[in-house]
Amino acid sequence: MVDFEIRKKILKTIKKRIHLASNLGIVELTIAIHKVFESPKDQIVFDVSHQCYAHKLLTGRNDDKFLKIRQSNGYAGFCSRSESDHDIFTCGHSGTALSSAIGLAVAKKIHQEDGHVIAVLGDASLTNGVTLEALNNVSLAAGRLIVVLNDNGYAITENVGAIANYLNGMVRSAWYLKLKTLIKFFFRAFPGGYSAVDWFAKIKMVIKGLIIPSTLFEHYGLKYLGPIDGHSIPDITENLEFCKKSKAPILLHVKTQKGRGLQQAIDNPSDFHGLAPAGSDKLTSKTSYQEIFGLAAIKLAETHKNIVAITAAMSTGTALDKFKDRFPDRFFDVGIAEEHAITFAAGLSRNGLLPLCAIYSTFLQRSLDNVIHDIALQNLPLICCIDRAGINSSDGPTHHGLFDIAYLKFIPNVIILQPKDGNEFIQMLFSAIQWSKPCFIRYPKAELDTCVLNWTPDTIDLGTAEVVNHGRDVCLVSLGSMYNTALALHKNLSNSNIFCTIINARFANPIDEGLILEMARKHSLIVTLEDHSIKNGFGSSVAELLYTNGIFIPIKIFGWPNEFLPHATSRESLADKYSITPDAMANEIKKILGK
Amino acid sequence: MVDFEIRKKILKTIKKRIHLASNLGIVELTIAIHKVFESPKDQIVFDVSHQCYAHKLLTGRNDDKFLKIRQSNGYAGFCSRSESDHDIFTCGHSGTALSSAIGLAVAKKIHQEDGHVIAVLGDASLTNGVTLEALNNVSLAAGRLIVVLNDNGYAITENVGAIANYLNGMVRSAWYLKLKTLIKFFFRAFPGGYSAVDWFAKIKMVIKGLIIPSTLFEHYGLKYLGPIDGHSIPDITENLEFCKKSKAPILLHVKTQKGRGLQQAIDNPSDFHGLAPAGSDKLTSKTSYQEIFGLAAIKLAETHKNIVAITAAMSTGTALDKFKDRFPDRFFDVGIAEEHAITFAAGLSRNGLLPLCAIYSTFLQRSLDNVIHDIALQNLPLICCIDRAGINSSDGPTHHGLFDIAYLKFIPNVIILQPKDGNEFIQMLFSAIQWSKPCFIRYPKAELDTCVLNWTPDTIDLGTAEVVNHGRDVCLVSLGSMYNTALALHKNLSNSNIFCTIINARFANPIDEGLILEMARKHSLIVTLEDHSIKNGFGSSVAELLYTNGIFIPIKIFGWPNEFLPHATSRESLADKYSITPDAMANEIKKILGK
Repeated sequence: MVDFEIRKKILKTIKKRIHLASNLGIVELTIAIHKVFESPKDQIVFDVSHQCYAHKLLTGRNDDKFLKIRQSNGYAGFCSRSESDHDIFTCGHSGTALSSAIGLAVAKKIHQEDGHVIAVLGDASLTNGVTLEALNNVSLAAGRLIVVLNDNGYAITENVGAIANYLNGMVRSAWYLKLKTLIKFFFRAFPGGYSAVDWFAKIKMVIKGLIIPSTLFEHYGLKYLGPIDGHSIPDITENLEFCKKSKAPILLHVKTQKGRGLQQAIDNPSDFHGLAPAGSDKLTSKTSYQEIFGLAAIKLAETHKNIVAITAAMSTGTALDKFKDRFPDRFFDVGIAEEHAITFAAGLSRNGLLPLCAIYSTFLQRSLDNVIHDIALQNLPLICCIDRAGINSSDGPTHHGLFDIAYLKFIPNVIILQPKDGNEFIQMLFSAIQWSKPCFIRYPKAELDTCVLNWTPDTIDLGTAEVVNHGRDVCLVSLGSMYNTALALHKNLSNSNIFCTIINARFANPIDEGLILEMARKHSLIVTLEDHSIKNGFGSSVAELLYTNGIFIPIKIFGWPNEFLPHATSRESLADKYSITPDAMANEIKKILGK
Repeated sequence: MVDFEIRKKILKTIKKRIHLASNLGIVELTIAIHKVFESPKDQIVFDVSHQCYAHKLLTGRNDDKFLKIRQSNGYAGFCSRSESDHDIFTCGHSGTALSSAIGLAVAKKIHQEDGHVIAVLGDASLTNGVTLEALNNVSLAAGRLIVVLNDNGYAITENVGAIANYLNGMVRSAWYLKLKTLIKFFFRAFPGGYSAVDWFAKIKMVIKGLIIPSTLFEHYGLKYLGPIDGHSIPDITENLEFCKKSKAPILLHVKTQKGRGLQQAIDNPSDFHGLAPAGSDKLTSKTSYQEIFGLAAIKLAETHKNIVAITAAMSTGTALDKFKDRFPDRFFDVGIAEEHAITFAAGLSRNGLLPLCAIYSTFLQRSLDNVIHDIALQNLPLICCIDRAGINSSDGPTHHGLFDIAYLKFIPNVIILQPKDGNEFIQMLFSAIQWSKPCFIRYPKAELDTCVLNWTPDTIDLGTAEVVNHGRDVCLVSLGSMYNTALALHKNLSNSNIFCTIINARFANPIDEGLILEMARKHSLIVTLEDHSIKNGFGSSVAELLYTNGIFIPIKIFGWPNEFLPHATSRESLADKYSITPDAMANEIKKILGK
């Protein structure tokens, strides 16, 4: 396939609303890499890997499953080892490609195996601690590693910080650009085969060495080549051929245009970043937790002068972009740097500010140590919104937010909440300000019915659940967005003369021990519902509470099974597959009750 | 206090075997910082903060509790907010000072408060991802941040990677050193007060700017000053006065000598890093899990050519130093870079090597996302030794390894083990090679009785516990090093005619469900014992298993309470305090049984 065909094919998936802009930008680069290297003997590792569509098309996946990408019967939206031998590493978070590539390269060296390792990084991954730790260890891979820096100057919304400025400065340098053209001119005029290519490329490097005497990368022992035009296959091929001959680890800086080939995507790259397949989770006339968070953050900041907001390169995804416009001095995008985000927040909090962070559930896994030491140990006030908690259907196993309760609830001082709807979310945000403690509020990416929002809510008593309905048989304890499922389950069971008490838990930690113990004494079965793994989640806390208090009544924990779940077209299709629909749950409850 | 007195006082604590070398090295620097700045209005944040002894002495803590540092009635070995207003941030892991300092500085800016923020970093912290993420965000602190780089060229064992080479290169540069002397000469010859100091310092910076046109730090938007002699109080003071006037974030590079003032500490700085107070956990004629691990790693690597070893700047602490000597090409010290360590290991494993990692329990908190995505999701073989699991008495809350089961057991595919003794540890290492899965073996820093080591052990069946003794009343299920406590408890209870079955669990995940369910049916009480928090640990898994299987018998979970535990002289003193001695546990069991 040539670039034109690949781009056309990728554009055909536009209705699936994939990571379109980054995939359009990397077409020529991917073609050139596959031209110069022999995959899978040469191992290509894509950072994040949401930009792997051209790679998939070039490695035998130009079929129907490609057009269904990110849907139940289609290919994954990321590289996946179970899908192809050409997908070297299953990944989905930014920042790991350089680390894993060094590992792959060192293993090849020890095994004395042939073949190159090529790590393809985006510019944004250079703001991430894992990449930076790896950069400091590049020399381990001696002679074996090619790093391609795909610099589209955007990252997910807009690249931030010193490294972005540095890269932009390098590209803008007029002196360097002129010299580059001159060298290119000489090079093109010169007839000859590979040895000439080699020779001229070497001259280019020496001259560049004089102009940019110590680039950031060379400090790390990584030879630097570039920047070159990432949409010219001949240019990239020529430079990769040179890299292939390098005896030392080498970085090729490639400038690409995110959304290349689609004006709409060029103009608004972040709108095209990670949207769900059309027809599933689309947000049209309805609202969302994200939208409400964006509004609430501004309202709270207007009345509370100590509130500041932090995002780790997700201002659009978490809906903090309007906060940024309204309070530019109280808004901080730290880049893809989730560890720093939390410790930075701890510093702000220590000196009297109230940080409002918004981080995706799986990305917050990176901040565990920072949450434990810098926030919880010092019991510092913080409101951290855990966005994308629960199933994220089309993104698959690296993005399903099914572990956050498990990796937070054992930390002393940490409060975890999940609202049942938009107004309760507002109430939780307002209440968290009163409590002045480390609070984590989780919510999914899902549509909500629009409603009149209440901006003067009562404060919730810390650690208390809410009894919504009284019934004599089963006590349903639902956490957050499972509330609607609990209502449906209640309705279904009442048709079989099984009557339910419904409790809206509100708190995943600490749970309302008094109320749950009381309810356990009054009912014959406790049923918990959560959008989380059943292992070490909310239901597990309820079970442990009952057991350790010697209250022995049956309990059924409904949630997602303790395995890495695949991607799917929609949340519903996964709920069907794993039998956590209201009907399937009702049947199981009837079975337990012997009805 | 002057430098001589402080150093003498610190040396007096030598019997407490503190972080001696780093504390002796930073005396003059600390004096100068406190001379130039007004603590706590000016906020000093020490990275790691184990080097805060001079700071403690200079801020009102020159008393008896200082001589009992790291003991039950003494001061903490790290900065602690609960101890003094001069301890700005409670911390204990390397890499966070720059992040928290940026937060402190931004908060001061927003509040329009006076006062400087001074972050004191060791050179090793520059290998850590959190520091590097923060470095990319330094510009946020505009005009408000002073970074002091305390470069002793050692880190904990020996600084590794590109940044260390870079710093050493900068210091060794003859040209630069000559010029520095020249400037110093002019400066000393010139009479005058502060304005002259200011003027000359500016000239120095400009000249240095010409010599080192783009230092690593300037890429990050941090002005660079240095390197200067870290044992000359006048030199440091002069430079800090200049930093104080800087309108932009500035870094002062200070060269110090770890262990200054004690020849023994100079010659062997890593021997003095983090030893426990004398008289508690000392390792004399006895052996340790660490020692056995060091031996086993070499034995395994001799017969298994695919084994490689990884440490994150802890080759001595984890006893991998002999492995390093024996197999230099198969040993990797990645610096204080725990995230990279695990993803790098995943890359090695993906290409057929078997990585043997050794990381401390609380440090592994940093690698959660890497364990989930790069190891577990791909089910890659790895043997990760979780060193310092359980109580680490004298280091306190940042180092007690009480959460690792909680933050790992919910991850699909992850196996967690803990041996009851040295030979079982060897057996687990040999077995893990056969299983070829992601295995995490936890063990404490504690002395073991020497014994004949068995280097040809049988393979353990995956997921099986071991029944050690049969009794009719209580079933004691002990994990790992709690085995000896279980034996003592058994003895104690048998004196009261309560007879115990003893199970050595071996696996914290997956637990031996079949055996535990069988035992639950045969006994009237299940008692679990673990050196871990009682929340979400091993006992919690046992309780959940029983409950979700409808087996309702009483269970008692013994472990550490779910709070941040303080430092103490010894494990025993904490066990007394929290009633988890055999006698206290026996009394509680008798109470439950109504005897």
